[in-house]
Amino acid sequence: MRGAVLYAPGDVRLEQRPAPEIINPTDAIVKIAVSCVCGSDLWDYRGINPVTEPTPAGHEYCGVVVETGREVATVKPGQFVIGSFFASDGTCPNCQAGFQTSCVHREFVGGCQAEAVRVPLADGTLVATPEPPADELLPSLLALSDVMGTGWWAAVAAEVKPGMTVAVVGDGAVGLCAVLAAREFGAARIIAMSRHESRSKIALAFGATDIVTERGDEGVARIREMTGGIGVDAVLECVGTGESMRQALRSARPGGNVGFVGVPHGVEINGQELFFSHVGLRGGPAPVRRFLPDLIGRVWDGRIDPGQVFDLVLPLDEVAVAYRAMDERRAVKALLRP
Amino acid sequence: MRGAVLYAPGDVRLEQRPAPEIINPTDAIVKIAVSCVCGSDLWDYRGINPVTEPTPAGHEYCGVVVETGREVATVKPGQFVIGSFFASDGTCPNCQAGFQTSCVHREFVGGCQAEAVRVPLADGTLVATPEPPADELLPSLLALSDVMGTGWWAAVAAEVKPGMTVAVVGDGAVGLCAVLAAREFGAARIIAMSRHESRSKIALAFGATDIVTERGDEGVARIREMTGGIGVDAVLECVGTGESMRQALRSARPGGNVGFVGVPHGVEINGQELFFSHVGLRGGPAPVRRFLPDLIGRVWDGRIDPGQVFDLVLPLDEVAVAYRAMDERRAVKALLRP
Repeated sequence: MRGAVLYAPGDVRLEQRPAPEIINPTDAIVKIAVSCVCGSDLWDYRGINPVTEPTPAGHEYCGVVVETGREVATVKPGQFVIGSFFASDGTCPNCQAGFQTSCVHREFVGGCQAEAVRVPLADGTLVATPEPPADELLPSLLALSDVMGTGWWAAVAAEVKPGMTVAVVGDGAVGLCAVLAAREFGAARIIAMSRHESRSKIALAFGATDIVTERGDEGVARIREMTGGIGVDAVLECVGTGESMRQALRSARPGGNVGFVGVPHGVEINGQELFFSHVGLRGGPAPVRRFLPDLIGRVWDGRIDPGQVFDLVLPLDEVAVAYRAMDERRAVKALLRP
Repeated sequence: MRGAVLYAPGDVRLEQRPAPEIINPTDAIVKIAVSCVCGSDLWDYRGINPVTEPTPAGHEYCGVVVETGREVATVKPGQFVIGSFFASDGTCPNCQAGFQTSCVHREFVGGCQAEAVRVPLADGTLVATPEPPADELLPSLLALSDVMGTGWWAAVAAEVKPGMTVAVVGDGAVGLCAVLAAREFGAARIIAMSRHESRSKIALAFGATDIVTERGDEGVARIREMTGGIGVDAVLECVGTGESMRQALRSARPGGNVGFVGVPHGVEINGQELFFSHVGLRGGPAPVRRFLPDLIGRVWDGRIDPGQVFDLVLPLDEVAVAYRAMDERRAVKALLRP
């Protein structure tokens, strides 16, 4: 089958790879309906994370189950499924607590920019749609496997509640989905930090009430000005740099919360500053599996359409073009059709 | 009047100071019934915080109101009161949100190791007892003005709930009060990290179910061993060093919380480690004022007796002896009687 492989920074290639096979009795093989490129793929593509060997790329997926191991009980061949980028057993204490991405048996689901993928721990990882979805639902369902689940988690981690004022740092696909999540959680005011017109437009469509173009200290000053000097109730940090984290922490009011979902790179948090800020902080890889049943329902009912974050659609054969477009920020997020 | 003044590291003196007077119409003058030395006073006494000029010492107090400014409405001369170490107006958005120690008009109440003190913003800061207290209640009421309020805040910040397993890092007065708070919050298992027999005894009296003497990585390993490899639901960090914070963060389960109330000194938190831990973190100077009415009630009813943390009682004249005993860890906490 065809699949994308990252060889070195800037060097992603589509090539023939062995078709995935059942290895463990808890595995499922999923024929990919659509896949995509993630902002976090760019950490590798840009060489910020070291690439030590050719690595099958992509971790977002949805599609049809074609085969299951003998112990798989909750999904079966023919069903359309969505799963998380971390496979989870669904039964360990961390899964039971709703933190499936900290499952004691977790496995990364890599190599999804391909025609098919092996998903370990299928029962604890995959969720089936009520029936095979219409083609126009595919982008939104795909978004649930990472970016929408991650934006949702940002809102959960920051404890967004009805009536709150929320700021979203980052206008990538996750940041935009975080805006949508804040709207669904009933936030009264949603301030999107964005200086890209095309992204601001999606943010507004997703429920942002204000756009702030300033960044860093100026962004913090603007947020404080908008909130009577106090800060916002919740900040959804969707970038993962030292600057974005500082901006997030300084934008929240005492007693407010920062949910941080951008994988931190070079981020050190000063304990004394955090202490005197009275701000609560929680982040981590989104426990997407926890949210999938709810989010599939919202997409199915037409209540949310996170698929709008895909502003570039390419055949899988052009995966290298997709990476380049995202790397150069010409696209928010590229969808790939095998 | 007599009052303690810190001149330099290791040099605290009792001397004659001007008696406090009403400066603003929102002030009250409180005649100190009992005061004490705080673990955080030792940061100055040890020269870890620089001492740039002679500074009236002490920030924990309770006593009788002797005079009030013309705008003070909720307390009056003759009442016995307890207040927080930060004066707060009680009306700003941060006070209204319950974070009085982030009051936009907050003022530090210093110079309490003395015969009397001026408390600014009396209406938002002081809480009166139902009637003048019996002498044997004084230590416990005094503890509410900082250490018990701070231990309570650790449990609130770490979101301790009935049935939880809780670890307490630090066996100073605040750590011991945090054990007591965890018990009051209904924790099923309370693991006190302590290697001092006299302190362990108080921890057990306050409700600790387990004592762990290991520290650092060994302490973390012990906690994990006791919790099936997963970690505890909540950690109350009551020290404020880099090591204690690392120990706290690594002892909590994914989805668990660390409440950190030891003023951090030289603490940097690695963003990526915090991210992958899935641990929530909130700290800060305890909003003692929020908890005072409830805590006064519990002391009044005999339900809690945090005054047990005072294992040394001295006349105010011997304040230097009190500092030395705490500095040398010969005393958990020293109470001073003017």
